[in-house]
Amino acid sequence: MIKNFKLIIEYDGTNYSGWQRQKYDRTIQGEIEIALTKMTHQKITVIGSGRTDSGVHALAQTANFKCDTRLTSEVFQKGLNSILPSDIVIKCCEQADIQFHARFDAKSKAYRYHILNHHLPTAIGRQYVWQICRSLDIQAMVQASRYFLGTHDFKAFEGSGSPRAHTVRNITMAQLSMDHSGKITFEIEANGFLRFMVRNIVGTLVDVGLGKLSEEDIPEIFHSRDRSRASATAPAHGLFLISVTYP
Amino acid sequence: MIKNFKLIIEYDGTNYSGWQRQKYDRTIQGEIEIALTKMTHQKITVIGSGRTDSGVHALAQTANFKCDTRLTSEVFQKGLNSILPSDIVIKCCEQADIQFHARFDAKSKAYRYHILNHHLPTAIGRQYVWQICRSLDIQAMVQASRYFLGTHDFKAFEGSGSPRAHTVRNITMAQLSMDHSGKITFEIEANGFLRFMVRNIVGTLVDVGLGKLSEEDIPEIFHSRDRSRASATAPAHGLFLISVTYP
Repeated sequence: MIKNFKLIIEYDGTNYSGWQRQKYDRTIQGEIEIALTKMTHQKITVIGSGRTDSGVHALAQTANFKCDTRLTSEVFQKGLNSILPSDIVIKCCEQADIQFHARFDAKSKAYRYHILNHHLPTAIGRQYVWQICRSLDIQAMVQASRYFLGTHDFKAFEGSGSPRAHTVRNITMAQLSMDHSGKITFEIEANGFLRFMVRNIVGTLVDVGLGKLSEEDIPEIFHSRDRSRASATAPAHGLFLISVTYP
Repeated sequence: MIKNFKLIIEYDGTNYSGWQRQKYDRTIQGEIEIALTKMTHQKITVIGSGRTDSGVHALAQTANFKCDTRLTSEVFQKGLNSILPSDIVIKCCEQADIQFHARFDAKSKAYRYHILNHHLPTAIGRQYVWQICRSLDIQAMVQASRYFLGTHDFKAFEGSGSPRAHTVRNITMAQLSMDHSGKITFEIEANGFLRFMVRNIVGTLVDVGLGKLSEEDIPEIFHSRDRSRASATAPAHGLFLISVTYP
């Protein structure tokens, strides 16, 4: 009997060339597919809600796979977690409607980005934050982050190499805050993201924090639809995919 | 002019064979001495407050080194941080009294140990916690931790291989707590620690949490002075040296 399983996956992207299966490099999708083949002796395709780039982490990437099997979701979860390396964890496995498709059915996604703004770097947890020693103007960054809310054409924030026909996205949440230790957290939720979009937004917010851009520049950057007007892409290792929402 | 510099050092011990310089393996002391030689073209010995074992981390290891130099502490801090790998950070460098000795002058040290008690492992931050899936009885562990307070003979909690003549130590703080996510934090402060002492205490507390030992067994274990009566050594990667106190 063909079953459709939904997975929620946490991973540390440090040692992977991103989500998507590649011929020679280690990827998250590739590792899970290899583990599933070990369990079932079948070639199985795992469909992710979307790609994450090389070095990006996830707390709750969502995926599905179909398989003609008598194994239960509990058996898959335990088996995968015993086979997979310790930097990939199946947080949840459940049987889904046979129609469920992790990419096509995703209604929104949320990402979180961590910056450490301190005059000294940190050794512990450095894999998970972008460390910026120069002092950032947080108030300016908070105000700038609000310009991203709503529906905009994100062409200027799209990474090169994989252009999309439609570059308009609707941002339903964009929040930036800093704690007492200098850790800045930026969270953003949208109905979809273009390639490098979150990291290009973060790079732009940091340039506002450094005084290289002002918050009023952001509408002009949208309007320009010109990648060179937005800032450099923030590093991958500060970025976490934190949730994918389905109807 | 010979100057004496005090260092406070944060490090991620994952990729090191502990603090102490070794002939072939990478160590924290070794890396800092190599960096100092690059800066000064002198052979310099860095004296730590004590060794940390392979894989153990530190938020504030303390050390000192003497050097005939005109360089200031600010120059040493900036220079070391630019030369050292990103998993070792000099948090503070200051000129100290010429008599200051990081090991002999240390009055007390504090360590913290992290356990994650959850039925599923975590991928993010797994380098910094001992993951235990079986449910732990936290109340029993909290009560057991109190038995370590005060002055005891820790012979039964001393790792083999480097016995000390005196095995009596005075524990001034021993606190265990758990947050809502299942993260258990154990903090312990003493006038000194034997080899593997904290990790052997943590292993014993976990056996209390698993019901293999009861809290009342702890006085008997002290009394036995027999290493085989205490539990297995907890893994290194959950342990952090968090502070060293000087008069």
